Amino acid sequence: MSDASSNLHLPKGFRASGVRAGIKPSGGMDLAVLVAGRDCSAAGTFTTNRVAAAPVHWDRALVPSGSIRGVVINAGNANAATGQQGLDNARRTAEMAARALGCRADQVLVASTGVIGHQLPMDRVEAGLADALARATDQPSGFVDASRSIMTTDTRPKVVSKRLEVDGREVTLLGLAKGAAMIGPKMATMLGFFLTDAAVQPDDLQRILAGAVEDSFNCISVEGHMSTNDTVLILAGGEGDPLTGPALERFASAVREACVELARMIPDDGEGATHLITIHVEGAKTRDDARAIAKAVADSPLVKTAIHGADPNWGRIVSAAGYAGVPFEERELSLTLNGIELYRDGAPLPFDDPAASASLKANRDTEIRLTLTQGDASIRFWTCDLTAEYIRLNADYTT
Amino acid sequence: MSDASSNLHLPKGFRASGVRAGIKPSGGMDLAVLVAGRDCSAAGTFTTNRVAAAPVHWDRALVPSGSIRGVVINAGNANAATGQQGLDNARRTAEMAARALGCRADQVLVASTGVIGHQLPMDRVEAGLADALARATDQPSGFVDASRSIMTTDTRPKVVSKRLEVDGREVTLLGLAKGAAMIGPKMATMLGFFLTDAAVQPDDLQRILAGAVEDSFNCISVEGHMSTNDTVLILAGGEGDPLTGPALERFASAVREACVELARMIPDDGEGATHLITIHVEGAKTRDDARAIAKAVADSPLVKTAIHGADPNWGRIVSAAGYAGVPFEERELSLTLNGIELYRDGAPLPFDDPAASASLKANRDTEIRLTLTQGDASIRFWTCDLTAEYIRLNADYTT
Repeated sequence: MSDASSNLHLPKGFRASGVRAGIKPSGGMDLAVLVAGRDCSAAGTFTTNRVAAAPVHWDRALVPSGSIRGVVINAGNANAATGQQGLDNARRTAEMAARALGCRADQVLVASTGVIGHQLPMDRVEAGLADALARATDQPSGFVDASRSIMTTDTRPKVVSKRLEVDGREVTLLGLAKGAAMIGPKMATMLGFFLTDAAVQPDDLQRILAGAVEDSFNCISVEGHMSTNDTVLILAGGEGDPLTGPALERFASAVREACVELARMIPDDGEGATHLITIHVEGAKTRDDARAIAKAVADSPLVKTAIHGADPNWGRIVSAAGYAGVPFEERELSLTLNGIELYRDGAPLPFDDPAASASLKANRDTEIRLTLTQGDASIRFWTCDLTAEYIRLNADYTT
Repeated sequence: MSDASSNLHLPKGFRASGVRAGIKPSGGMDLAVLVAGRDCSAAGTFTTNRVAAAPVHWDRALVPSGSIRGVVINAGNANAATGQQGLDNARRTAEMAARALGCRADQVLVASTGVIGHQLPMDRVEAGLADALARATDQPSGFVDASRSIMTTDTRPKVVSKRLEVDGREVTLLGLAKGAAMIGPKMATMLGFFLTDAAVQPDDLQRILAGAVEDSFNCISVEGHMSTNDTVLILAGGEGDPLTGPALERFASAVREACVELARMIPDDGEGATHLITIHVEGAKTRDDARAIAKAVADSPLVKTAIHGADPNWGRIVSAAGYAGVPFEERELSLTLNGIELYRDGAPLPFDDPAASASLKANRDTEIRLTLTQGDASIRFWTCDLTAEYIRLNADYTT
């Protein structure tokens, strides 16, 4: 990462930092700020969990917005299932940052990740926030520290940056993300943050982000447990006329690419994962049908353990497709695994079992391709395998 | 089991057996027959998986029926995802039994459990079936052998029997079941079979069975992977006037009780399970809402690993409830775990963490109680915890 940081493209007009606030029991970095030099367009997408965390309630009321000045993120505590006091603490965090930044509280977004059901230690948040704001810098180190401070059980920070020319202007997009779904011992959540020096109207930004998230962060799963805190935010701080037409669409493509790159990193770094599994569903009637089938396969512990064990036990895959709630006839379904055809038009094919197993063993990247004959809709979905290490991390942590 | 067999109540008019047909690679008993001395009323409930096994297609077309004479069950091969040849093999199995029993093929039901995507070894099925029919007996040993022959990764056979008086007549109900969901290495399926010497009309039997399954086998989960083969069948072979009115309802209660007892045995014997988890959801608007919430909690690997690790990490429970697709406000939700109140009206309560952990550690039976304030609907749902042993059995089996 320290090497990678030298290759980072940084959007103009932003500062960042990450500090040790003492929220994580480990004592690691756990509080980050992303600060804009001027009012930004901002957009967000959030968990649909009915038990949504306090910061999700706070942000959801504010975006899309044309006047966001910063984001405060803490790890180690989700501020979820914390009742009215949790909502008060999210608001107080925004107020403290606003006071230091010379703006209103409703110009500051907040995000949290960590254990559910505990109140934030506000004295530590306050001291850490003051420290983080004092250290915020436009140098790579600030963004690298921020990417590390939002980690929970991630084994590595997740950063992408893109530089592109639109309308003759150079535009930079930086993205940070952290661990998938609720993968951690007492930890939670997928968070993603994008900063750009492009000039984009809030409503355009919201549409672009929502579309990109649909094809990326909404197409990943570690164990299928939807977090209370999932949040993706984007801040666009460019000056001048906002992007329109083809220039706006080129920017949208860059956002989509960046989202897909970050999203894939999450199951690839899933707890205990030894395989990154890409599931293609093609020939479905609708994209929602394709997604439902992909998600049923991705979330099946039996599929995930079979791939972990390099066992080409493909019946687990087609039977998971069968309970996704999508109506189809068996003869409309075919399957390949790492390019090996196993099942065509609802009937099994003879295949080389040891060769299929060897392919699963040799490749961290695993490809499942389910083809229907119902239409033109398709999806690409990512997950990881399920290992004893996952159980150890999530069960034996406190024993 | 050999001890228990002496306490078994056996319904009059049935014979049973279980034999080694050579379908299971282990060489264990793998083919059972249940044979009636006369035409029986029969009812069935089946998987809703779109990839339904061939025997499911066969049976579904036949029940409810007033003329069933027997059931042939094999373990070691699911006859699922096997195309037209699989359907032909299911029909051939029924035809072979029918020839020996002197009835029509459409008077014989079939059921399979085991690996998906392989054709049945019909030579072995044929020889095993002849052997099983020759050995079929009305003595306890036949039913005990049958209960063992349908096992896959079950560690013990699952049998219940009930004797009750209805309308001055003694009626006996016997139930056999095997392993939950798709819990096994290359194995599959929940199967349940009930035999009774009560006289019940086919349509009444179907209604009674469907209602009982709804409250029992449809309220259990091991890892949430719905099998291609799930089947529950009941045969009623009593002579004389069929039961009606209060007598019929007393019989229905016995069926329901027997279903619940057998269903609970399945997650209790889930692969690697160290806890039987009972989830109560109360105060929901509808029973479907209650079931959706219970199932989301039951299927969450994070909930299951937390309980395995005796970790009272209750945020995982309420957050699973939150993504069940049931609309509610957080303040409408409360939670107790093993009777310890953790979360009331959407806010966390102080609790004794070590005491809660000790309670989880000390008790194999775990009780999760989620209470909403939306209505009067409730459900009781059973699952088991998720352990490294489950991963070992399902991943490392073939390596």
